[in-house]
Amino acid sequence: MLNVGVLGYGTVGSGVVEVLHTNRESIAKKVGQEIAVKYILDLRDFPGDPFEEKVVHDFDVIVNDADIQIVVETMGGVKPAYDFVKACLQAGKSVCTSNKELVAKHGAELLAIAKEKNINFFFEASVGGGIPIIRPINECVTGDVIEEISGILNGTTNYILSKMASEGSDFDSVLKDAQDKGYAEKNPEADVEGYDACRKIAILTSLAYGKQVDFEDIYTEGITKITDVDIKYAKVLGASIKIFGSSKNVDGKVYAKVAPVMIDSKHPLYMVNDVFNGIFVKGNMVGDLMFYGSGAGKLPTASAVVGDVVAAAKNLGNNVPVIWEQEKLTLADIKESAQRFFVRLSGDKAANAAKVEAAFGKVQEVEAGVAGEYAFITDAVKEGDFETKAQELGNVVSRIRVDF
Amino acid sequence: MLNVGVLGYGTVGSGVVEVLHTNRESIAKKVGQEIAVKYILDLRDFPGDPFEEKVVHDFDVIVNDADIQIVVETMGGVKPAYDFVKACLQAGKSVCTSNKELVAKHGAELLAIAKEKNINFFFEASVGGGIPIIRPINECVTGDVIEEISGILNGTTNYILSKMASEGSDFDSVLKDAQDKGYAEKNPEADVEGYDACRKIAILTSLAYGKQVDFEDIYTEGITKITDVDIKYAKVLGASIKIFGSSKNVDGKVYAKVAPVMIDSKHPLYMVNDVFNGIFVKGNMVGDLMFYGSGAGKLPTASAVVGDVVAAAKNLGNNVPVIWEQEKLTLADIKESAQRFFVRLSGDKAANAAKVEAAFGKVQEVEAGVAGEYAFITDAVKEGDFETKAQELGNVVSRIRVDF
Repeated sequence: MLNVGVLGYGTVGSGVVEVLHTNRESIAKKVGQEIAVKYILDLRDFPGDPFEEKVVHDFDVIVNDADIQIVVETMGGVKPAYDFVKACLQAGKSVCTSNKELVAKHGAELLAIAKEKNINFFFEASVGGGIPIIRPINECVTGDVIEEISGILNGTTNYILSKMASEGSDFDSVLKDAQDKGYAEKNPEADVEGYDACRKIAILTSLAYGKQVDFEDIYTEGITKITDVDIKYAKVLGASIKIFGSSKNVDGKVYAKVAPVMIDSKHPLYMVNDVFNGIFVKGNMVGDLMFYGSGAGKLPTASAVVGDVVAAAKNLGNNVPVIWEQEKLTLADIKESAQRFFVRLSGDKAANAAKVEAAFGKVQEVEAGVAGEYAFITDAVKEGDFETKAQELGNVVSRIRVDF
Repeated sequence: MLNVGVLGYGTVGSGVVEVLHTNRESIAKKVGQEIAVKYILDLRDFPGDPFEEKVVHDFDVIVNDADIQIVVETMGGVKPAYDFVKACLQAGKSVCTSNKELVAKHGAELLAIAKEKNINFFFEASVGGGIPIIRPINECVTGDVIEEISGILNGTTNYILSKMASEGSDFDSVLKDAQDKGYAEKNPEADVEGYDACRKIAILTSLAYGKQVDFEDIYTEGITKITDVDIKYAKVLGASIKIFGSSKNVDGKVYAKVAPVMIDSKHPLYMVNDVFNGIFVKGNMVGDLMFYGSGAGKLPTASAVVGDVVAAAKNLGNNVPVIWEQEKLTLADIKESAQRFFVRLSGDKAANAAKVEAAFGKVQEVEAGVAGEYAFITDAVKEGDFETKAQELGNVVSRIRVDF
């Protein structure tokens, strides 16, 4: 029997215990022995919970128990998760985590400790919830040079944008509805400002290129400025507005950003709606790949953590190699990357057409029956040049990147 | 430097050599050393080919060369691939193959030899071409009990069905066009009769449940009976006709089949068109997952083989565990599985409605303006019962399974 300690008995942690319990027979077959949860660390007690007698309040009980070979970290946040995970790895225990903040910030260091100790640090659940994406990038698409990763990486914002599109509602009322349903936090900043997606694309980009990508270096724009009028225009274009975390490798320069983008029905992520996530990966040999599934939620995320537990159990005494050096990958300035932009200006066509043509040349006009506005899509233009020209125009109501 | 031998210098084999050459720098970084092709086995010579001096005609040169630690098998077919692969594994060389016939028939035995020799037998390219699907099932979704795998697993038939739908053409003329373009073989039987998809769903099902699924046991129906009139009805329903290789686990009974099916736009595989493949996986914890990409073609397939070569190189002296026992998994009889059916009968509504209601109860009528026919969709009915009733009706023009 293999003993597991679980750090944090919140949504994901309790899901992990549930998955290990519900599927114990099929898991034991795959591992070759039973996996049992020995301790659950949490500050709270859980009277009446079927696993209440496993709950402990002292981390030392877990880290000092030589019987525990695998630790699950589902606390979230960097403190104290980082100290706990590091101590477990240093004590020779493999760690499986769903914690994107921890992985984005300390992944390279924790992987190095795992390698040195010949154990494993796994984090499949940290990006895309239940969707297998970490292993595919780390172990499957390794014959390719990755040219692009673009992901719908946050279920909350995808739900909000999908509802705005299907119901024609504005941002604030859909956010409130999402909060009422438990899809969005009371403080929704990490989701709606793109910070969550930013950590996730930092992790994927680090894995794709084998070096540390600091999430602080990634340009991040949320969805709070997207309005129902923008979505009205998107519909006229047969397009959908999504928020992508993306990184592109252009001649060896890696550009990364989080921002809303218009995509049309030809894009593999077009049909990814509601709380689902989807991740598009383009390799120089394999071409386009797409991975789709539940990017959040108790059981899907727990499923990915338990998949890691099974892998850790099958690889006791064997470090599965992951290339993610602590050396920093310097991202290129996205101002230098070219992009089409959808733009809305205040004032009608007569007031704008000439100065728009002077700034951007011939543009694709977009007519959605909105009075007092002139809307268009530019050709590809460097982001920096676009911002300069947009400031010069002085009457930009809204601008959204376009990926078609 | 790690030396590789390549068996078979056809489309995929030459792609493997090309990928290893084009991406040699990024691959060397991931492996920690260079990977070089030392020999290529083929019956033919390749004068003028940049790698012509690597070509040998004698398998013994490769199997007896202690410098070769990894062998790529891209010959296809069971003979002589099976003998060659077995000999390489027995000689302590890891093998990476794209050969679905070989894997479906001898996967369990070859994995057992690899385990015994502490080397690896990898076959990511055998299903879904460049799409990562073998490792996700084998190493990621392991915390789940898999309830369903349904895949568009054959690019040729998906191309034919997509073209029939987009152009309204009949099967024969689209097949001819596909043959002219090189998407279909001169003898298209393995594709259009579903034999290729059958081997692939046999492999996926074996991996999902850890036991040998014999492809000969899988009910297999091709697309040759699908007509442009069927597609006309599908359009009225907002549906698309695909050929799925699928297996479903219902209360521990596994049903597997290959057959055309109508799906609507809510199905994650609805947007998988042309030569692309897509694989839907449903776990009891993770819910719906979908994997999409190029299911065939020289470079995408070679990309998956090279990903395996990288994995083999990173796991020298370490067998990556795969559970696929030689013990046979007895499939349940699909006659016992329930399914909705779309049915076309000759004769108008007046001639058919009463006897249809007697046979199937209330049905959903489908009107596509086709004279002299009566078409409908049944409620879910056991396949065996359906076939009996259809025979009793005596005037079935066409019937297609419905997955909505």
